Amino acid sequence: MRNTSLTQSVLEGNRLALSRLLTQVENESSDGRAALAELFPHTGRAHLIGVTGAPGTGKSSLVNQLTLYYRKQQDKRVAIIAVDPSSPFTGGAVLGDRVRMRDLSGDNGVFIRSMASRGSVGGLAQTTAALVQVFDAAGYEIIIIETVGAGQGEVEIARLAHTTLVVEAPGLGDDIQAIKAGILEIADVLVINKADRPGVENTERALRSTLELAHPTKRVFRHHGQAMSIDAPEPDSKIWIPPIHKTIATDGTGIAELADSIARHAAHIRQNGDWAVRDRARLGSELEAVLQSELMKRFFDRVQKEKYEAVMEQVIQRNLSPYEAVNQLLNGNPNQEK
Amino acid sequence: MRNTSLTQSVLEGNRLALSRLLTQVENESSDGRAALAELFPHTGRAHLIGVTGAPGTGKSSLVNQLTLYYRKQQDKRVAIIAVDPSSPFTGGAVLGDRVRMRDLSGDNGVFIRSMASRGSVGGLAQTTAALVQVFDAAGYEIIIIETVGAGQGEVEIARLAHTTLVVEAPGLGDDIQAIKAGILEIADVLVINKADRPGVENTERALRSTLELAHPTKRVFRHHGQAMSIDAPEPDSKIWIPPIHKTIATDGTGIAELADSIARHAAHIRQNGDWAVRDRARLGSELEAVLQSELMKRFFDRVQKEKYEAVMEQVIQRNLSPYEAVNQLLNGNPNQEK
Repeated sequence: MRNTSLTQSVLEGNRLALSRLLTQVENESSDGRAALAELFPHTGRAHLIGVTGAPGTGKSSLVNQLTLYYRKQQDKRVAIIAVDPSSPFTGGAVLGDRVRMRDLSGDNGVFIRSMASRGSVGGLAQTTAALVQVFDAAGYEIIIIETVGAGQGEVEIARLAHTTLVVEAPGLGDDIQAIKAGILEIADVLVINKADRPGVENTERALRSTLELAHPTKRVFRHHGQAMSIDAPEPDSKIWIPPIHKTIATDGTGIAELADSIARHAAHIRQNGDWAVRDRARLGSELEAVLQSELMKRFFDRVQKEKYEAVMEQVIQRNLSPYEAVNQLLNGNPNQEK
Repeated sequence: MRNTSLTQSVLEGNRLALSRLLTQVENESSDGRAALAELFPHTGRAHLIGVTGAPGTGKSSLVNQLTLYYRKQQDKRVAIIAVDPSSPFTGGAVLGDRVRMRDLSGDNGVFIRSMASRGSVGGLAQTTAALVQVFDAAGYEIIIIETVGAGQGEVEIARLAHTTLVVEAPGLGDDIQAIKAGILEIADVLVINKADRPGVENTERALRSTLELAHPTKRVFRHHGQAMSIDAPEPDSKIWIPPIHKTIATDGTGIAELADSIARHAAHIRQNGDWAVRDRARLGSELEAVLQSELMKRFFDRVQKEKYEAVMEQVIQRNLSPYEAVNQLLNGNPNQEK
């Protein structure tokens, strides 16, 4: 009952209630779960934007500038979820947060939530998805999911989004090349931030040639070759070619053009049906993730602690391999037989 | 029967058999699983060394130099598992691999396996753990698990190791600072590679002060303050203070000292019991991971595809939240009731 009034307050735009609910959801409390179920019918309206890229590319400043743009030019409410999977123990997002406070504090149309990782990446993606639902239900029209780093975990989190920005910067070393090939394939929009730095032409050239390699439709790519540089393809073209934007987040250069590309991408995928496909994929993985943790929970509720530890001891003694151990645990339990 | 002779060949040191078996294990074939069970009693001897750090720090070159050192100075057999979780689609590890080929090819005491990510990070950690078992059983005394990037996924993979090296390099940008705090807590040995670059003093100072903040036992830290710079603490001291090493992997500077620290760490954790604790934790997560995928597999074997899709459709229509959907799926099935 008390929690129903909490979700009600969230739906009415109460920030304190929102903050409390986010904590409940992050803690995976039963109240949090119940609230998610109540809020779920109100979701499905927000534009989810993922922002990812290597450390040192200035993602946080870019997200701040984009947010200011959405606030000032379009009067949209913006939620930012800053995920820092590289920080499993201590709060590593502090630096970026301080910059945020300066630029965005005091604006009631902006809500920022930082999440350091606890437990597995899978758990992090699941919690992020849950926070997205809360913000969506609470009426935030733009939800930016910013992830530090460019590992597979971040890729999974970026997959939550309708539109994914991959941010690069000039002169970040050779290994970056290796990363691009993989990360490019999840990019809907490419950003070369810190574009006032030396080496920006090299970065752009490298990105463009990797993009050309990565893109399956070379002919179309060449056709749109000119437009790629600054303009995105027209929303009615069948294939989306990730545009490359050069920005300087510290002074706002290129932000309006970037926001325009993001909007074009949203229009494009709404038109060609990809928006629904991405929503479906996101909810599908969410369902699987919840299923997985619930299966584990029910198993551990059911299995005797002593039995589990005895089997574990057999593994440590190298008498049972992990696969044999699992078979013994599951087949020994009649509730689990096929 | 045929596969038993394959595992037998692996145990006898046949490289072609090893290569075939690694592929079976990576593909999670039933033959691969059976082989893992056969090999498992032969595991538990190798020293597992994790190497992680941000892109651009020169990890691959460092791993190559360490490997050459173990080969030439200690005549140990070395397996390298290069995990690239940032490359979900295309092979992003190609660059590093070419350098490897030049330095290490033709040496029968070295085996290199690159893994691009497929599926989830959890899956990647699980496959990596399985490959580690194969190499361990095959008699590789040193197994180096190298991960690109510094996200949570990499942290999970690094947790497979007895000794974790975190590699930094001078001048990689401000965001790096934020990452360190988290990643430092998994570091057993810190390496500042590319130590001939400008800014190395700043990097070392920053690392040292973060380390001081991160370390819970300041008094001990200060006591060992001098020794930390180059020497590791004595193996008999109760608390391990991660030493900071400066290396130039391209010309081998600092590699012998680094290898010495790694050996001291191994001796230290063998003495204080932490080696066994880490083994136990690793096998524990492995058991859980196998349990999780087996529970999911059995669920999907059992549930009717039509029922699952009908429930999924309800989620997409926002009629059921993912949690409600899972409850419906699990409680509708009498085999799953508590």
